[in-house]
Amino acid sequence: MKVVTFGEIMLRLKSPGFERFLQSPMLEATFGGGEANVAVSLACLGINSSYVTAVPDNPIGRACIGELSRYGVDTSKVLKTGKRLGTYYLEQGACQRSSVVIYDREHSSVSETTAEQYDWEKIFEDVSWFHISGITPAISANAANVTIAAVSFAKNKEIQISCDLNYRSKLWKYGKKAPEVMSEVMKYVDVAIGNEEDCQKSLGIETKILPNTAGFNEDAYKEITEKVLSTYPNLKKVAITLRQSNSADINGWSAVLNNRKEYLKSVRYDINDVVDRVGSGDAFASGLIYGFHKYGGDKEALNFAIAASCLKHSVPGDLPLITETEVLGLLKSGGSGRVQR
Amino acid sequence: MKVVTFGEIMLRLKSPGFERFLQSPMLEATFGGGEANVAVSLACLGINSSYVTAVPDNPIGRACIGELSRYGVDTSKVLKTGKRLGTYYLEQGACQRSSVVIYDREHSSVSETTAEQYDWEKIFEDVSWFHISGITPAISANAANVTIAAVSFAKNKEIQISCDLNYRSKLWKYGKKAPEVMSEVMKYVDVAIGNEEDCQKSLGIETKILPNTAGFNEDAYKEITEKVLSTYPNLKKVAITLRQSNSADINGWSAVLNNRKEYLKSVRYDINDVVDRVGSGDAFASGLIYGFHKYGGDKEALNFAIAASCLKHSVPGDLPLITETEVLGLLKSGGSGRVQR
Amino acid sequence: MKVVTFGEIMLRLKSPGFERFLQSPMLEATFGGGEANVAVSLACLGINSSYVTAVPDNPIGRACIGELSRYGVDTSKVLKTGKRLGTYYLEQGACQRSSVVIYDREHSSVSETTAEQYDWEKIFEDVSWFHISGITPAISANAANVTIAAVSFAKNKEIQISCDLNYRSKLWKYGKKAPEVMSEVMKYVDVAIGNEEDCQKSLGIETKILPNTAGFNEDAYKEITEKVLSTYPNLKKVAITLRQSNSADINGWSAVLNNRKEYLKSVRYDINDVVDRVGSGDAFASGLIYGFHKYGGDKEALNFAIAASCLKHSVPGDLPLITETEVLGLLKSGGSGRVQR
Amino acid sequence: MKVVTFGEIMLRLKSPGFERFLQSPMLEATFGGGEANVAVSLACLGINSSYVTAVPDNPIGRACIGELSRYGVDTSKVLKTGKRLGTYYLEQGACQRSSVVIYDREHSSVSETTAEQYDWEKIFEDVSWFHISGITPAISANAANVTIAAVSFAKNKEIQISCDLNYRSKLWKYGKKAPEVMSEVMKYVDVAIGNEEDCQKSLGIETKILPNTAGFNEDAYKEITEKVLSTYPNLKKVAITLRQSNSADINGWSAVLNNRKEYLKSVRYDINDVVDRVGSGDAFASGLIYGFHKYGGDKEALNFAIAASCLKHSVPGDLPLITETEVLGLLKSGGSGRVQR
Amino acid sequence: MKVVTFGEIMLRLKSPGFERFLQSPMLEATFGGGEANVAVSLACLGINSSYVTAVPDNPIGRACIGELSRYGVDTSKVLKTGKRLGTYYLEQGACQRSSVVIYDREHSSVSETTAEQYDWEKIFEDVSWFHISGITPAISANAANVTIAAVSFAKNKEIQISCDLNYRSKLWKYGKKAPEVMSEVMKYVDVAIGNEEDCQKSLGIETKILPNTAGFNEDAYKEITEKVLSTYPNLKKVAITLRQSNSADINGWSAVLNNRKEYLKSVRYDINDVVDRVGSGDAFASGLIYGFHKYGGDKEALNFAIAASCLKHSVPGDLPLITETEVLGLLKSGGSGRVQR
Amino acid sequence: MKVVTFGEIMLRLKSPGFERFLQSPMLEATFGGGEANVAVSLACLGINSSYVTAVPDNPIGRACIGELSRYGVDTSKVLKTGKRLGTYYLEQGACQRSSVVIYDREHSSVSETTAEQYDWEKIFEDVSWFHISGITPAISANAANVTIAAVSFAKNKEIQISCDLNYRSKLWKYGKKAPEVMSEVMKYVDVAIGNEEDCQKSLGIETKILPNTAGFNEDAYKEITEKVLSTYPNLKKVAITLRQSNSADINGWSAVLNNRKEYLKSVRYDINDVVDRVGSGDAFASGLIYGFHKYGGDKEALNFAIAASCLKHSVPGDLPLITETEVLGLLKSGGSGRVQR
Repeated sequence: MKVVTFGEIMLRLKSPGFERFLQSPMLEATFGGGEANVAVSLACLGINSSYVTAVPDNPIGRACIGELSRYGVDTSKVLKTGKRLGTYYLEQGACQRSSVVIYDREHSSVSETTAEQYDWEKIFEDVSWFHISGITPAISANAANVTIAAVSFAKNKEIQISCDLNYRSKLWKYGKKAPEVMSEVMKYVDVAIGNEEDCQKSLGIETKILPNTAGFNEDAYKEITEKVLSTYPNLKKVAITLRQSNSADINGWSAVLNNRKEYLKSVRYDINDVVDRVGSGDAFASGLIYGFHKYGGDKEALNFAIAASCLKHSVPGDLPLITETEVLGLLKSGGSGRVQR
Repeated sequence: MKVVTFGEIMLRLKSPGFERFLQSPMLEATFGGGEANVAVSLACLGINSSYVTAVPDNPIGRACIGELSRYGVDTSKVLKTGKRLGTYYLEQGACQRSSVVIYDREHSSVSETTAEQYDWEKIFEDVSWFHISGITPAISANAANVTIAAVSFAKNKEIQISCDLNYRSKLWKYGKKAPEVMSEVMKYVDVAIGNEEDCQKSLGIETKILPNTAGFNEDAYKEITEKVLSTYPNLKKVAITLRQSNSADINGWSAVLNNRKEYLKSVRYDINDVVDRVGSGDAFASGLIYGFHKYGGDKEALNFAIAASCLKHSVPGDLPLITETEVLGLLKSGGSGRVQR
Repeated sequence: MKVVTFGEIMLRLKSPGFERFLQSPMLEATFGGGEANVAVSLACLGINSSYVTAVPDNPIGRACIGELSRYGVDTSKVLKTGKRLGTYYLEQGACQRSSVVIYDREHSSVSETTAEQYDWEKIFEDVSWFHISGITPAISANAANVTIAAVSFAKNKEIQISCDLNYRSKLWKYGKKAPEVMSEVMKYVDVAIGNEEDCQKSLGIETKILPNTAGFNEDAYKEITEKVLSTYPNLKKVAITLRQSNSADINGWSAVLNNRKEYLKSVRYDINDVVDRVGSGDAFASGLIYGFHKYGGDKEALNFAIAASCLKHSVPGDLPLITETEVLGLLKSGGSGRVQR
Repeated sequence: MKVVTFGEIMLRLKSPGFERFLQSPMLEATFGGGEANVAVSLACLGINSSYVTAVPDNPIGRACIGELSRYGVDTSKVLKTGKRLGTYYLEQGACQRSSVVIYDREHSSVSETTAEQYDWEKIFEDVSWFHISGITPAISANAANVTIAAVSFAKNKEIQISCDLNYRSKLWKYGKKAPEVMSEVMKYVDVAIGNEEDCQKSLGIETKILPNTAGFNEDAYKEITEKVLSTYPNLKKVAITLRQSNSADINGWSAVLNNRKEYLKSVRYDINDVVDRVGSGDAFASGLIYGFHKYGGDKEALNFAIAASCLKHSVPGDLPLITETEVLGLLKSGGSGRVQR
Repeated sequence: MKVVTFGEIMLRLKSPGFERFLQSPMLEATFGGGEANVAVSLACLGINSSYVTAVPDNPIGRACIGELSRYGVDTSKVLKTGKRLGTYYLEQGACQRSSVVIYDREHSSVSETTAEQYDWEKIFEDVSWFHISGITPAISANAANVTIAAVSFAKNKEIQISCDLNYRSKLWKYGKKAPEVMSEVMKYVDVAIGNEEDCQKSLGIETKILPNTAGFNEDAYKEITEKVLSTYPNLKKVAITLRQSNSADINGWSAVLNNRKEYLKSVRYDINDVVDRVGSGDAFASGLIYGFHKYGGDKEALNFAIAASCLKHSVPGDLPLITETEVLGLLKSGGSGRVQR
Repeated sequence: MKVVTFGEIMLRLKSPGFERFLQSPMLEATFGGGEANVAVSLACLGINSSYVTAVPDNPIGRACIGELSRYGVDTSKVLKTGKRLGTYYLEQGACQRSSVVIYDREHSSVSETTAEQYDWEKIFEDVSWFHISGITPAISANAANVTIAAVSFAKNKEIQISCDLNYRSKLWKYGKKAPEVMSEVMKYVDVAIGNEEDCQKSLGIETKILPNTAGFNEDAYKEITEKVLSTYPNLKKVAITLRQSNSADINGWSAVLNNRKEYLKSVRYDINDVVDRVGSGDAFASGLIYGFHKYGGDKEALNFAIAASCLKHSVPGDLPLITETEVLGLLKSGGSGRVQR
């Protein structure tokens, strides 16, 4: 199996520990972005994974590519063009204080490329799965166009397409509303992933569920999965993650999946002392792709995905650096966290 | 509204993370002290806030003033005199292990100034609120005298005066007992703030409540507020914070306020994974001052104060670097800690 | 009272915070190892404690000795010989992710010494207690032989001997099974310490209890203590620690002790936000030795030991840097973690 | 004396020590920019100094303002507007390897403001000196227009104007050549500061001197100062700094000044082990402004300026954190670097 | 051009800055080793470079491979086998104090592999250059045998072979003397690289030159190059690096090359403030390989190599992270170290 | 040989790298003080060395003792009494900027002890050498009295006494001038050590030499040694260190010794890139004591001392962590700083 993901990767500038921005004159500097996180996660799970984006041809852009290579992602299709790598500032929340994300990603290399700059034929050679997210179409008209060109091309090659809806309220500033663009993208998608807010804001699906209100009541999400599936007849499956945010540190975590035949509920995990929840949705997406491929059954895939993403909460940084052994260990033992020695 | 606070600010030398003192040859070096924390907190909330103290005229003293300026506090009334900035060593507790504070503040600049060195007329120009604490009278006879001179002067100018009782058992070494001095200070005070131990040890009010015994039973504190109010007829309001310390990391947090008309109880917060509780009482005091000013109603002020100080528990260092938007967000949403992006 | 411990101390190379190995190009570098941890813990409790091992005569070996001296352990009997100090890599777990230990201790100095290299007469001069663990016999045939020589010598001098069973599945690679060697060692032992897995794997005692299954049901361990005592008639006491691992961060912690007369259960502690659990078993062992000596009664010793080891969970590094005052404070106050100021 | 400076301040993201970009996942994060550095330097010298710029109204922009306040700069005229704070990446050179600067400052707040957004009347109230640089006109047409509006306004108020030519080859991308814009700016300038390359590239003055070729031959620069003065009849003085770059670490440092009456040469300093040379030109400019004001004579001012900027080479970061006492000490003692104790 | 290198890569554990070992409980943890450094250096110069070694199949081994991938080295031929990754401890010298290296590399994975474990056919597919060093044959009899098998195989495929003699006095402990083994290896070598000590100790060539005695007298080395060439008739070229060590920080650096036709001398560089000299010999070797390939002429290659390795002295860590642009810039400009902005 | 030293040890709080105080909110926290440095240096050289002082009985005091123990110093005679450990703030100079020391040592434990608190009989048991400095008599009248009591007691026991004059202009605030007290102390001293300023200011010896003026002209110091010897007839030897401070980073270093028979000059070292010069005088003193003991001849001792103290300049922190092997290596090889591997 070979998977391609396409999107934007940014330099992530995080204040140390739980400090507010620039309490200390230092920022942790790593890289991340939804689709890149999926590519790295898949590579860590042992999948042949390739990431497509555009970065500037300068030391920052090259360091970014190097970091992806370090975890085994194929970066040979990355364009080196444009002026800047997008950045985002992250201040990690704690207790009742939320994490804060400040985007500084306008005019990034990937936001200014056009579909013609990419060699889609080569990008999709021998590829069986293509993953995108709702973030890329949100960053610029250009990026939305490239996204649609990519899914259209992939569809023609009969590649399976997954899309993490990932609604970002701080983006979508270039003149179009999310549902307007995403409904076009969704026509090509086989598997949609999101949370309740994504379904509402990204797809314009109306629902009575608000973030946190349904809590761990997985049944409450059945209706929304049905609405999504009925709106997009091409969709084969829709998966929804449920985060019960008690505080920045204490989260409940589970998911549901509707494959038009069954409405499946995952195991649930109580995650206390969250280390870093950024990228956990991406760990879920990659876990799902991996699970479909490796285990066949949707139930097994769903549980694998929720366990993989549960473990991501323990890893600092965007990247879900989790192995298959670790995921299976959690599914089997229940995560007692005993020292392995 | 312009607020002045007066007291001692120290260099805070903290071992990194949860390390015991000098496990590593490094100390985090920031600044803090009850009344300075209140001044910074008010400045972060947008209030015109001025801090009065004395620091030595050396690079450490100047760095201290710089740090206050950085957050917008007016430091133009700070005296540059004396020999040393007081310091305190902090080892952060975890699990069942308490935080340890070692004071090294004797002979500090502010502990050796006299009332005549301060230009009270200029200090209180256009000021409507003056905040002090029970720490300053505890450090030296001089500091106690300056405190009384200051509240007396402020009272004459019809400035509202708040006092955080803040009993410190490791101080009060210069020959007087806390109640002896504090009862003199309290004659000028309009709003008293404290916890149950402060009322007992700082004011000498007898009560059957011991730290942690009443836990979250806010009703148990009604009697003590009444005793305080009846002892000091000039007092308009007394507020008491209730900390349910389950461990160094897990605290319950609420407060009550008696304004002679009503006995009000705040919302309660369960704080897990405390990042830094030092300064949370100061965040409460500043939240109360801000709330009285901005919202009028004591109920709103009390809830604002408890929410502001709840958030302080998530910020490393003494300083309550919290904005009004964040406090209102917590009061509205309940602190789910979701990433803002 | 003078206590000697013998075993292997390693350089502990830990990734910072909760990072996976080498996410950052830095490793925290401290020293630790079961019996050394016990020696340091006893020294911190005020006991005259001496540690015997072998380290290479190079800057790393000398730094290791220096670290032990820093906490007051007598290192005058340490051999300077051999080629390398064993190391172990530690990746700290969080949430549902377990800590990972990678041993790189083969061919270490202590694993290659023979009994003749040690001056047992001098080592045991004026000594009343000797502590070993099941780790040393697991590292090499040589180390097993030295262990047996040491306990045999100590027994002849009527020194009390404690053994922490400490089964390590990643060791025992030199051709013998644990029970084969440990049953020989146990003939000399007065007090055995372990958890349920140690009893099974180290001693070959059959039991129906699996890690975590009995949870906090202290009664379930009575049978296993009786089996151990009946297998080794020389044994005076056996103590078993019970860890309820809910996750890497949240543990329950208690212990039981059978002295052939009584089956004693300790107080229980709920430990949230574990800082570092490595070395907590060693804190228990040292607490027990200290408690027997200082308090006489087994019940007091058991509670002292469980409280000391509870506090160890809050200290980064292998070494249980806990004082008697702190342990007694916890036993008295229940560990509310209030700031001491 | 009150001085205003106007320009762009950026977040400076520097790899630690001498590391290449992102060898470690960390960046030192401070703030700097030519005119802000001058404002901070003047404040450290005790001058009433105000800095005008535009920063986004977000935590990064506010932290930037806070940092300036920390050193006593008046930031009350800073606009809070626009989308982003410009950033620059810095990799510090060593030995024969040059420092690398990567600008990421396009679309910054200040680059997109217009002259009408600034309240010049208030900005220049009671001001006697205005300092700008050739960097601001290089970043955008808007910024060039604001610069010209500012100097024109200041000229009308008979404020003395200094301009550090500061040619930056990586800027000037908006369609105009440097000399085209700078010759307009220069009409309002009283004191010009630069190096030989600035005179050539920023002003279009032809000269035979190339960077480093004249080395420490201060006489070689007489002709170029005369050419600048004859081109701009309004100019009263021109000062040129001479850097003899033997390597990234070892520099010679001196300056010359032509005031139409005399051609003055400064003392020279050999600077080995340069800690951070960024901002040393700004330290020179502020030293000159300070020297003209405090000492009157151009010779004293020139020496003060070169000594202040010599000392800047020892301070990490952009900001010239140097006091008058230190500068005078160097001028008097010759910089033996003995410990002061 | 495709280059393969074979050898041992280690975890490099360095005390921070100029600290003695374990003054602080922290070690910088990077990777390095002569032949790996050459592979990374070539990849940074744009060459298709592949590295062959053996590492344990654990997180440390995988992190090591990841680090090589990060810089673009092909690691697909690395064996995952054996028990441990060799480590070395490094304490950086300063002033008159030498750097100290402590090897802990016995029993490493690569030291225990045999020639049969490697798929030489695949390793050398399409390869035109093979690089080894005198370190690998020094670590174990096995490693010496694999080295000879590799050069023999490569020779048969008419691949050019370079060998950096790299005599290491702390190795060669397995029973053979260096000249005994190296004279066998040298039969296959086309280009030998070393310093004067390497020629003497590794090859057993007698010479009157001692380290540092000839200093920068490049002529003194002619005789030794001729002796080496006459001893090994297959050798086409021999290059010798000349380090004039005035102190740990101040080195002179040049090289000579004898290609049997000419005796060439490189440019010389004075390197003050050495940041990290480890790996500079490897930068020289890779620069030479690159130069032969890119520029043809030996003179150009020699100067390219000495310039590349001069720049390595400014980069922390073993890896010569230097680009062709930087090398050519130094050769052209002379290394003034001016800031590039 | 057993050596005792007596004096004050402080917590040393240093800003990181070359940062000005509190540019970053962090301070390196180590321990040091003249006589403690001598004790540690002797221990590192293999001498049985004991340090006498007084520290508070709190975690900071205990950590201080632990640090001395770590390097093998006998701390069993240290008093645990008083209120605080003195501290000093250090900002490291660079280039032409001097290091700054801010003392905060008033009211320290040792400054308030009296001679009666020390058990001199036990302290001097089996001791053959006692070392003090001119710092202790400068801190308080009490400390001066204890010093005189100590040297008087030692003299009676016919212990050799060395005194490092160490004039500190920021001390001597308790009402007496240095020469008044030091002339009393000197009556008991056998070996005096100092620089030219110490002789003038500490002893009141008039001389025409000013710091740095004589530079490396060792002959110029003959007269001053003769004056010192003639003033104190009991003195056997006087040694003077000569520091040629070209800048904070570049120093020349040599010494002279007059033993009434010969006027000896040491080898000279040029020290570039000074890492930390604090404690180098103490390394000289300990080197002299060691050299007299080990080598007998004053010439050998003088050269050993100057080489040991030369090497101290390369070690961060106060403590001269240098071994005999390293000193002899430097004396033999001349300090080329080659990597030892």
